[in-house]
Amino acid sequence: MKEQIEPRILKGFRDFLPQQESRRKAVQETLQAVFRQHGFLPIDTPILEYSDVLLGKGGGETDKQIYRFEDNGGRDVSMRFDLTVPFARYMAQHRSELYLPFKRYHIAKVFRGENTQRGRYREFTQCDFDIVGVDCASADFEILLLMVRSLQALGVHDFRVHLSHRAIFNRFLDTLGAGRQSGDILRSVDKLKKIGEEAVREELTQLLDQQRAAQILMFITATGTAGEVLTSLVALAGHNEHDTGRLQAVLEAAAALGIQDHVRLDPSITRGLDYYTGIVYETFLDGAAEIGSVCSGGRYNDLASLYTKEQLPGVGSSVGLDRLLAALEELHSRPAEPSAVDVLVLAFDETGIGHYHSIAEQFRAAGFSAEVYPEARKLGVQFAFAEKKGIRTAVICGPEERAADVVTVKDLAQRANHSGLSMDDALKTVRRIISG
Amino acid sequence: MKEQIEPRILKGFRDFLPQQESRRKAVQETLQAVFRQHGFLPIDTPILEYSDVLLGKGGGETDKQIYRFEDNGGRDVSMRFDLTVPFARYMAQHRSELYLPFKRYHIAKVFRGENTQRGRYREFTQCDFDIVGVDCASADFEILLLMVRSLQALGVHDFRVHLSHRAIFNRFLDTLGAGRQSGDILRSVDKLKKIGEEAVREELTQLLDQQRAAQILMFITATGTAGEVLTSLVALAGHNEHDTGRLQAVLEAAAALGIQDHVRLDPSITRGLDYYTGIVYETFLDGAAEIGSVCSGGRYNDLASLYTKEQLPGVGSSVGLDRLLAALEELHSRPAEPSAVDVLVLAFDETGIGHYHSIAEQFRAAGFSAEVYPEARKLGVQFAFAEKKGIRTAVICGPEERAADVVTVKDLAQRANHSGLSMDDALKTVRRIISG
Repeated sequence: MKEQIEPRILKGFRDFLPQQESRRKAVQETLQAVFRQHGFLPIDTPILEYSDVLLGKGGGETDKQIYRFEDNGGRDVSMRFDLTVPFARYMAQHRSELYLPFKRYHIAKVFRGENTQRGRYREFTQCDFDIVGVDCASADFEILLLMVRSLQALGVHDFRVHLSHRAIFNRFLDTLGAGRQSGDILRSVDKLKKIGEEAVREELTQLLDQQRAAQILMFITATGTAGEVLTSLVALAGHNEHDTGRLQAVLEAAAALGIQDHVRLDPSITRGLDYYTGIVYETFLDGAAEIGSVCSGGRYNDLASLYTKEQLPGVGSSVGLDRLLAALEELHSRPAEPSAVDVLVLAFDETGIGHYHSIAEQFRAAGFSAEVYPEARKLGVQFAFAEKKGIRTAVICGPEERAADVVTVKDLAQRANHSGLSMDDALKTVRRIISG
Repeated sequence: MKEQIEPRILKGFRDFLPQQESRRKAVQETLQAVFRQHGFLPIDTPILEYSDVLLGKGGGETDKQIYRFEDNGGRDVSMRFDLTVPFARYMAQHRSELYLPFKRYHIAKVFRGENTQRGRYREFTQCDFDIVGVDCASADFEILLLMVRSLQALGVHDFRVHLSHRAIFNRFLDTLGAGRQSGDILRSVDKLKKIGEEAVREELTQLLDQQRAAQILMFITATGTAGEVLTSLVALAGHNEHDTGRLQAVLEAAAALGIQDHVRLDPSITRGLDYYTGIVYETFLDGAAEIGSVCSGGRYNDLASLYTKEQLPGVGSSVGLDRLLAALEELHSRPAEPSAVDVLVLAFDETGIGHYHSIAEQFRAAGFSAEVYPEARKLGVQFAFAEKKGIRTAVICGPEERAADVVTVKDLAQRANHSGLSMDDALKTVRRIISG
């Protein structure tokens, strides 16, 4: 007898049971359909790459969050930790094979040795979409539109995309003469949703005089319609075609498409410090705010500078699939459960199994999913199986039915039998049960 | 100026451009639809697992093909090299949450440090489907049916699934008194398709006397209808309900469903030595035989013995996605190219971009994929973009059209303009162009 190994998985990694995985796939398929409908095309890249490509020259200090090792050929390799760095490398490497503007989506797993105590996973799925090669309002708007349409397609209707522009806040700080402290100030401002207005004010008065702290708070807490907030920003920071003008164009397009209620101009959105240079987005679901943003992104002015001298501006956003699924659970607004299987053909004997499979084929040809119970076990066992798997109907074709060339359809939810049916009538009966 | 890093990927790993990735996704979606239609449900497992779980106690000698390393927490971990071992672990670990028979499919990447000179990849995608928990002809047949239906759904019609039963050949060798050399004999027999009959005969006569070598050759080269081959096998090895009886039941079911022309009883199929215990399958496409089997599998009597005492018999098969795509290329019978994008709305100015996006939305609402060119560049640039991306139609709504509340639809393949159209007529015109 072999010594057995305890079946277990690594902390922060997950198995998915069929029901969970079906739901995950349904969400991914919905997003993918929206992306494609808007002219975004799929790409894929390796899960494993050279460490210097993913982490920069020399690979930097060993980041605890990176799965990095030496492969059997002595190469320094790492598992990807996001989809943005590989995309930058991809754009530089395949530039001659691609055209601009290039619109891609990428739904794939990434790996980070995160602290799992905060409910984070070490293997998780990102859904990124970007437009590379242009710096214009139309592209900024298209990413916003895609964020709105994606959530709507998932059946979520109560949400807002909060957006702002990195340059306005920086310009405002310069006007205040506080540009040099912008790093510290942005870090405080970023905490507004977590710690609240008074706590941010206290932090800011450590950095600046009371008056300027008050002005910053007024800037980031401006409320009202998007138009009113924009007016307030222009009053505080001045008008500039590149930032307030850009926001205005994006907001006008949102109104033209009737999605303005899903868009909120929110000057407190800063999205970290280094990466973004223009518009930035975060998305909050009403009633699931504590989960944080389920879809975030923004504009960057130089995607692939690590790999090429060609400047590639772009704008994009990313859905955190795991966080989004958690939010949907929270809201009890799961995407419609893909029903497991429509039809189970019961088995009465194990000779002539072709007969049962032929019946299942006729249901499949009519568009149903159908399977045959493989062994001639007691009917109670077969019904119990159907119930566990969530199968809607059973088709019974025992010796008597077979002699009379009929079948019985059983509605498993209602526990009702429909007997003596021709195959045609059986198909109609199943259709009625499934669609009812 | 930052020092730049050469954008490059690891040997044996691949980037996929949008056209390739679209094709890969289309094949996966087709397979998935077939699997679901037959009641197979999706699961997923981690890409990274404990090495002892994937490789057995102690992990064995370090296999050069395994990506194995110590993670930042000091754990001995490996990237999965197939989907079967993780599935065995999964069944043992989640046994109480699952019901039997359990039918799952799993489409995912696996990693092996293969010698890339033989055209092998180190990261590749497998599509596995299995029925666990029963040992019966109906399940063996269902896997065969799925193999046939999967290829048909991909538009492949000239192929055969070659099948055999591991036990028959072993029994036959015992009858010959050659059971002890079965390992060497099976290795020779396995080369039949590569090196031919005479070379195999030569190898066999190194192991056995000429008469028994001749009998083995007669056994593995039996030709004719499945019924004739079966008769020949029974004549040489004797009848046994468990193996020849099982094959007979599977072949009868194939005939009942009219797929017998895609099935070939081929006693030379052995599929390695250890794993399989019953029926074995390999699939060859006519005209692409040198690519080898594109879908292979068989029956095993104890899936998860490494992790649990419960015996879990099963039967399954696996499509090698990369090999299948190579075979489809070879046959020039690519699955229908998913067309990139149906409609490009051209841009004439950058104010009021909502207008262009509204037009695109109307096409999307009618079921088309549509995008807006983001900048008001020269029409020649916009048309060149459409051509590179493979977009079928352009919608022109310049200042004149806008004043008259009409649009022009351009058929980009035919270079024909349809001017002065209402939106309704524009939708109809695009539909005619796309479906033509």
